Amino acid sequence: MSPLYLEDLRVGQRFTSRSVTLDAEMIKAFAREYDPQPFHTDEEAAKKSIFGGLAASGWHTAALTMRLNVEALPIAGGLVGGGGEISWPRPTRPGDVLTVEAEIVEIVPSRSRPDRGRVTVRFETRNQHGEAVQVATMQLVVPRRSQA
Amino acid sequence: MSPLYLEDLRVGQRFTSRSVTLDAEMIKAFAREYDPQPFHTDEEAAKKSIFGGLAASGWHTAALTMRLNVEALPIAGGLVGGGGEISWPRPTRPGDVLTVEAEIVEIVPSRSRPDRGRVTVRFETRNQHGEAVQVATMQLVVPRRSQA
Repeated sequence: MSPLYLEDLRVGQRFTSRSVTLDAEMIKAFAREYDPQPFHTDEEAAKKSIFGGLAASGWHTAALTMRLNVEALPIAGGLVGGGGEISWPRPTRPGDVLTVEAEIVEIVPSRSRPDRGRVTVRFETRNQHGEAVQVATMQLVVPRRSQA
Repeated sequence: MSPLYLEDLRVGQRFTSRSVTLDAEMIKAFAREYDPQPFHTDEEAAKKSIFGGLAASGWHTAALTMRLNVEALPIAGGLVGGGGEISWPRPTRPGDVLTVEAEIVEIVPSRSRPDRGRVTVRFETRNQHGEAVQVATMQLVVPRRSQA
């Protein structure tokens, strides 16, 4: 896909990513480095936890979502996020196949910087059952194509 | 530190993490796997980007923040977040020394589940200059000590 500029986007536009499959080893390896809690690193301990079984760190789901988004949403100059909201409606489990559906929800050209705008995108990360495991609504900086 | 229950927390309470130092190799390794964009993986390309130099993926900053929080905020049963808001006021750079300051901002005992409550925590991740590189305000599920 060719790079997308502010002028190429419209509210309601959707982008669907490829899929990525998560296994228990990936979950445990990420968690050992970034979120070393028993429900992310140990199947037996996880059974007795609030998750009732091994679950991926929410930040692992977030990082994998970013990986998929980089490929699915080829914004000119890259995907640069200033922040937003994130939630994990249900855990990501070993064997889950994740796909991201992105939808453009707002486009605001910058008043002070005529070379760019702010675009709000809702990224829903779904498992193989179509259930949302993460919903993130993020602000992106997107360049304009036309320059003086 | 002993595990913290809902009864042990109060609004305004603060927790400070240890520090972690980020180098260029760590930034590039994370980015190759989860956020493969030139400004996160290549110094030369990064100079010409919106960041003006190599910058960590925001999700890397988030993951490192989680790592620090797991040690700094020993909630009973673990740090279980339902979601919240996140922003990256400035980039995380090679050589940055990150520390997280957590502050309890709201405590809401559950009406439907008397064994737990919802706690809102503001996590500010700062570099060695005291500047915020990430601000995350997250909802945590925290168990109560006293059970019927």
